[in-house]
Parts: sequence; C-alpha cells; structure tokens
Amino acid sequence: MKVLLIGASGVIGQAVHAHLSARHEVLTAGRNSGQFRVDITDDDSVRRLFEEASANGPLDAIVSAAGELHFGPITEMTAAQFNIGLQNKLLGQVRLALLGQRALSDGGSITLTAGILSREPIRQGANASAVNAALEGFARGAAIDLQRGLRINVVSPTVLTESLPSYGDFMPGMEGVPAARVALAYQRSVEGGQTGRTYFVE
Amino acid sequence: MKVLLIGASGVIGQAVHAHLSARHEVLTAGRNSGQFRVDITDDDSVRRLFEEASANGPLDAIVSAAGELHFGPITEMTAAQFNIGLQNKLLGQVRLALLGQRALSDGGSITLTAGILSREPIRQGANASAVNAALEGFARGAAIDLQRGLRINVVSPTVLTESLPSYGDFMPGMEGVPAARVALAYQRSVEGGQTGRTYFVE
Ligand SMILES: NC(=O)c1ccc[n+]([C@@H]2O[C@H](COP(=O)([O-])OP(=O)(O)OC[C@H]3O[C@@H](n4cnc5c(N)ncnc54)[C@H](OP(=O)(O)O)[C@@H]3O)[C@@H](O)[C@H]2O)c1
Ligand SMILES: NC(=O)c1ccc[n+]([C@@H]2O[C@H](COP(=O)([O-])OP(=O)(O)OC[C@H]3O[C@@H](n4cnc5c(N)ncnc54)[C@H](OP(=O)(O)O)[C@@H]3O)[C@@H](O)[C@H]2O)c1
Repeated sequence: MKVLLIGASGVIGQAVHAHLSARHEVLTAGRNSGQFRVDITDDDSVRRLFEEASANGPLDAIVSAAGELHFGPITEMTAAQFNIGLQNKLLGQVRLALLGQRALSDGGSITLTAGILSREPIRQGANASAVNAALEGFARGAAIDLQRGLRINVVSPTVLTESLPSYGDFMPGMEGVPAARVALAYQRSVEGGQTGRTYFVE
Repeated sequence: MKVLLIGASGVIGQAVHAHLSARHEVLTAGRNSGQFRVDITDDDSVRRLFEEASANGPLDAIVSAAGELHFGPITEMTAAQFNIGLQNKLLGQVRLALLGQRALSDGGSITLTAGILSREPIRQGANASAVNAALEGFARGAAIDLQRGLRINVVSPTVLTESLPSYGDFMPGMEGVPAARVALAYQRSVEGGQTGRTYFVE
C-alpha cells in the first residue's frame, strides 16, 4: 500500500513509520520535516500536499499523528486558548480527512490520532478532553457518510513511555505505553476492515 | 436558586424554562429574544451578559440550550463549514462556561446541551457527532479542574418530538422524546450533586 504519514517526525510518527515502512511504501510529511511540508491548519497547504503526494497515483492510506492542544487551568482559560486545540489538533486533522478523501483509492483509509484524555481527564486538560472526544465522534459520524468504501478510524493512546519525561508530572500514576505498541493500532486501522472505530491503546 | 438560561426561546429552552421557573428564579437570554441579549460566539457580548445578569448577586446555575451546527455530506464538506459547529455550538457553549464560572456562587453549576448524534451518527451529521462528543469530553475534563465546588454537566437528548417535523427525515426511524422529559435532565443537573456527567435522554 501507499501510505501518507503526517507528523512522521514525532514521537508517535517515528514509531508508526518504523512499523509500517517494513510492510508498505510510506511517504512522510510534517511542518518542518519529511518528504512533504504541510501546515494542517491551512487549506491551501493541505490541498497542495495531497496533489503532490498523489501525483503518481492515489494513496491507499492517510495516517495523521500531528496536532497541538492547549493545556492550562480551566479557571484562567480563555476562549482563544481553547480554540488552539479546535483549530490545530481537531480541525487540522478533520481537514486532512475532508481534503484527503479525494486522494484515496477506493477502499482506502484515514487514521487520525486522539488520546486517552477524552475519557481519563487530568487537571488542566479540558481542551484535550474535548478535542480527543471530538475526534472519536468525528470518526463515528464520518464513517457512515464516506463513499467508495473509504474507512476512517482514530487511535487513542495513553501517554507514551517515551513521553513520560515530558508529560508524566501532569499524569500522576498513569502507566505509559511503548510507542511500538501504539504503532500496532495504526496497522490495525490501515490493514483491517473496521470503520468509525477508536482503538484505545492503554 | 437564580438560574440564567441561554437559548430560552428555543424548543428545548422553552421546556426548560417552563419546568425550572416553577421552582427557581429563571433569567432568560437569547440572540434576539429574552431579558438579556447575547451572542455566544463573542467574548465581549458574553462578558457583558454575565456582568448584567449577576449585577444583583451571583448566579446559582447557568444553563445553555443554544448552539448551531453544520449539516451536509462529508464528501463535500469544507473545513470552514466544519468550523461553524466548532465556533458556535462548541466554543460558544465552552465560552459560557469559561466566562460564566466567575459569575457563579460557590457550588453553582453549569449545564450545556449536546445531542445523541455523538453516539448515534446520521448521514450528513459528522460535524454534529464531533461537536456533541466534544461537549461531553469538555464536561469530563472541566469538572475536575473547576474550583469552589462548581459543577458542570451536559444534557444529550435524542431528537425532540416537537422537532420531528423539521428533522425527522434526517433521522429515519428514530424515536422522538417530548421536550418536557428532556427538561427533567436539566433539573437533575442543576439540583443534583453530580459533575462531569452527560445525561442522555432517549
Ligand atoms: N506523545 C504522547 O504521549 C501522546 C499520547 C496520546 C496522544 N498523543 C497525540 O499524538 C499526536 C502526536 O504526538 P507526538 O507526541 O508524537 O508529537 P510530537 O513529537 O510533538 O510530533 C508532532 C509531529 O506533528 C507535526 N506537526 C505539528 N504541527 C503540525 C502542523 N501544523 N502541520 C503539520 N504537521 C505538524 C510535527 O512536524 P515537525 O516536526 O516537522 O514540526 C511532528 O512531526 C498529538 O496530537 C498528541 O496530542 C500523544
Ligand atoms: N431540537 C432537538 O430535537 C434537539 C435534539 C438534541 C439536541 N439539540 C440541541 O439543542 C440546542 C437547542 O436546540 P433547539 O432545537 O431548542 O434550538 P432552537 O429552537 O433553534 O433555539 C435556539 C435558541 O438558541 C438561541 N441562540 C441561537 N444562536 C445563538 C447565539 N449565537 N447566541 C445566543 N443565543 C443563540 C436562540 O435565540 P433567539 O431565538 O433569540 O435567536 C434560541 O433561543 C442545539 O444546540 C441543538 O443542536 C436539539
């Protein structure tokens, strides 16, 4: 399969790349790295990405492991801060699905990344809880409306072992999961038959 | 209790008003109707609402039954269209929570409105599925971060019997629920002790 991986340089992206590239042709994209440069918050940039990446034939899978959130106490949060996660991790990945569907071959798949905070909230994490839950809802809703047998799923990992040094203090007592295990869920979504699913990796 | 109801003129708002005003002092707000005029998509407008509504003393509950979504086929949806639900029903109601918390007395509550499409998707409903799920996630996340014993919940009704003539064709075979039953869930949230909950009314 021809797989386009957005966010390929990230902690998750690197593991997904390592796992999937043993089995598929993986094209990489990122904001400042990868074979293709893209800003997922920008329509024109995303349109260009799909034109370029599918110039030699349609993609079979689009995988996104990109997207920023706002973390901070709810008592001080502004609507503008909350909108960061909406415009970046949520609408950014939704944009990949909306514009990417046309670059996919029949039966192709879209896999987006959410995260455990949708159902295991942490302090300062209200934006993450909302955005991650929205991505799960989006996959459920989009799955029954996509055409040509296209599928869409979400991977929702808990904190990665590799990210515990950066995020662990915000998630007291939460167990990490190795990036290599998380990568399996992306394979399930890309190669499996399900749609509208969220794969939780905990 | 002193309750501020935003969206009081709507199908849901009217039923909530009828039910809660028998037991509480209910102040009404809406875009073009009610004692207070407010646009939930605008920070200044929402700030003014809470200043005016709490001028004679803090509120005990904020209830929102307002917010617009985009409906349309995923195959044609643009990011700008998807953003309508994010800016209106989602961020609009989140804004009421973020700015409203300071107008509430200790132990006060915030109740927002989502909808069944988060878990029962319909065709053309991907924006609604995402936004409604986000509101559920937001309540879970915000609940553990609010201070002074403030609570936050979401009411998620299926289609109202009263709205079947308008929306029924988009929801083939889905049973309606009378607005008067939906209103009970708002009472549960306002008068009960739970927080971070979604009350599904089906
Ligand atoms: N790490 C965890 O423990 C964990 C757990 C659960 C969920 N998640 C979620 O998984 C996603 C990836 O996390 P991560 O830790 O792997 O992130 P990361 O290491 O910071 O990597 C982010 C990747 O996304 C790309 N990117 C960022 N903004 C972009 C934009 N506007 N347009 C295009 N590409 C962009 C970056 O590209 P460049 O490097 O080229 O700038 C990079 O490849 C995030 O949404 C995060 O919330 C992470
Ligand atoms: N009806 C259903 O079957 C159903 C089922 C599940 C969920 N819901 C959800 O419940 C919410 C209310 O639905 P509804 O059918 O009762 O709606 P509705 O009859 O259209 O009433 C909407 C109410 O919200 C107010 N409003 C709209 N935009 C606003 C804005 N930008 N700022 C402030 N107020 C605004 C309106 O004020 P004005 O009249 O003054 O303009 C009106 O009071 C919606 O989010 C909907 O998705 C509805």
